[in-house]
Amino acid sequence: MRYELYYWPGIQGRGEFVRLALEEAGADYADMARVPEKEGGGMLAMSRFLEGQDIECPPFAPPFLKAGRRVIGQTANILLFLGGRLDLAPRSEAGKLWTHQLQLTIADFIVEIHDTHHPLGSSLYYEQQLAAAKRRSREFLALRMQKFLGYFERVLRHNTAAGPGMVGTKYTYADLSMAQVIAGLRYAFPKASHAVLAECPRLCSLQDEVFARPRLKRYLASGRRVAFNNDGIFRRYSELDM
Amino acid sequence: MRYELYYWPGIQGRGEFVRLALEEAGADYADMARVPEKEGGGMLAMSRFLEGQDIECPPFAPPFLKAGRRVIGQTANILLFLGGRLDLAPRSEAGKLWTHQLQLTIADFIVEIHDTHHPLGSSLYYEQQLAAAKRRSREFLALRMQKFLGYFERVLRHNTAAGPGMVGTKYTYADLSMAQVIAGLRYAFPKASHAVLAECPRLCSLQDEVFARPRLKRYLASGRRVAFNNDGIFRRYSELDM
Repeated sequence: MRYELYYWPGIQGRGEFVRLALEEAGADYADMARVPEKEGGGMLAMSRFLEGQDIECPPFAPPFLKAGRRVIGQTANILLFLGGRLDLAPRSEAGKLWTHQLQLTIADFIVEIHDTHHPLGSSLYYEQQLAAAKRRSREFLALRMQKFLGYFERVLRHNTAAGPGMVGTKYTYADLSMAQVIAGLRYAFPKASHAVLAECPRLCSLQDEVFARPRLKRYLASGRRVAFNNDGIFRRYSELDM
Repeated sequence: MRYELYYWPGIQGRGEFVRLALEEAGADYADMARVPEKEGGGMLAMSRFLEGQDIECPPFAPPFLKAGRRVIGQTANILLFLGGRLDLAPRSEAGKLWTHQLQLTIADFIVEIHDTHHPLGSSLYYEQQLAAAKRRSREFLALRMQKFLGYFERVLRHNTAAGPGMVGTKYTYADLSMAQVIAGLRYAFPKASHAVLAECPRLCSLQDEVFARPRLKRYLASGRRVAFNNDGIFRRYSELDM
């Protein structure tokens, strides 16, 4: 099956969690907003799904995935769908739900990371909410980042199947997402993340190992991966990295 | 099966979305943090799961559900699990995923509702972030509330099965959650929600119909439902209701 991923073309954002799963599995997919309009892609193709009155299951926002005639939205839901098809989740119901639970906790973490630079809302520029961003970042870096990372480190350490990732005997989509979060935190908060990650050796290994996997290594070298930048979830503002 | 729900005892919060599903289905469950300690409940029983090193799939935060030997966390994940068992979701994979996608969009909405009163972080008191709360609320009420409600109104109107709710031919857990969100918005923002909901007749009917269902009516009359209050997600601060 050829998948169509729809997401903003200029950022990694939430779409990157889906891209990493598709790349790791060697799936056949098109990143539609980056496909030329004359080939059926571009922003117009994406907005048709968001505004269209004729879509049976309209997504609220990107990313969404077209798989045959189905349109599936919400990052964690897309990964739940892909997990079984791309062999990136356990086969048992309990394993599937536990992987999904971790993905949803990663999603909560991502909201808090995003809100460090946009605590007052996404409709205002960063510069319009700088003072609030500083206060929110202080809270995040002092309390929340450690709480989340400590939790995931504990999950890695306690994987009863002794696999390399958080669930079962092999990597799941949640591990790929976790590696992406660590990379993002290192980009956004090089100083503050350094100290906390020194206490999380398993998460550091996870990041190294995931991005060293042959297909992901090729993806990173391909030029297709958008670089981290200050329009995405993870932004580097030195004044917030306390 | 007797379910054990673990959630903060003094608020509706995210636990209420699970409670409504259990109540609507007439499920046998105990709200463990409200059960006396000598009967195995209370806050101690809850914190054992959050801090315990011996839990195979430790939840990051309440709510979580114990079902036999399984412990399942994340509100939307609990509802995904319960949906099939309590007949509150379609049986097809496509129907299950679409219901879950709506629940995840409701979860995003809830984060934004919560952040109107706590934009700088949950570790600070409301009074310490009043100015930021006013700015965030202004953005939320001017743009985001309408965007979310307009989306869900459209989904209700376009249900191809012409059922009473958002998916298929009967109510799902996502409809129960949606009704709870409307009730919460009416509590938190009586003025601002009034104008927007006047444009959303299907959502208003959904709220009325869901809370008029026999089992939910009994639940509301039982005294077991915690009242809305200013420790929960939906808080009534008149200075934010612009």
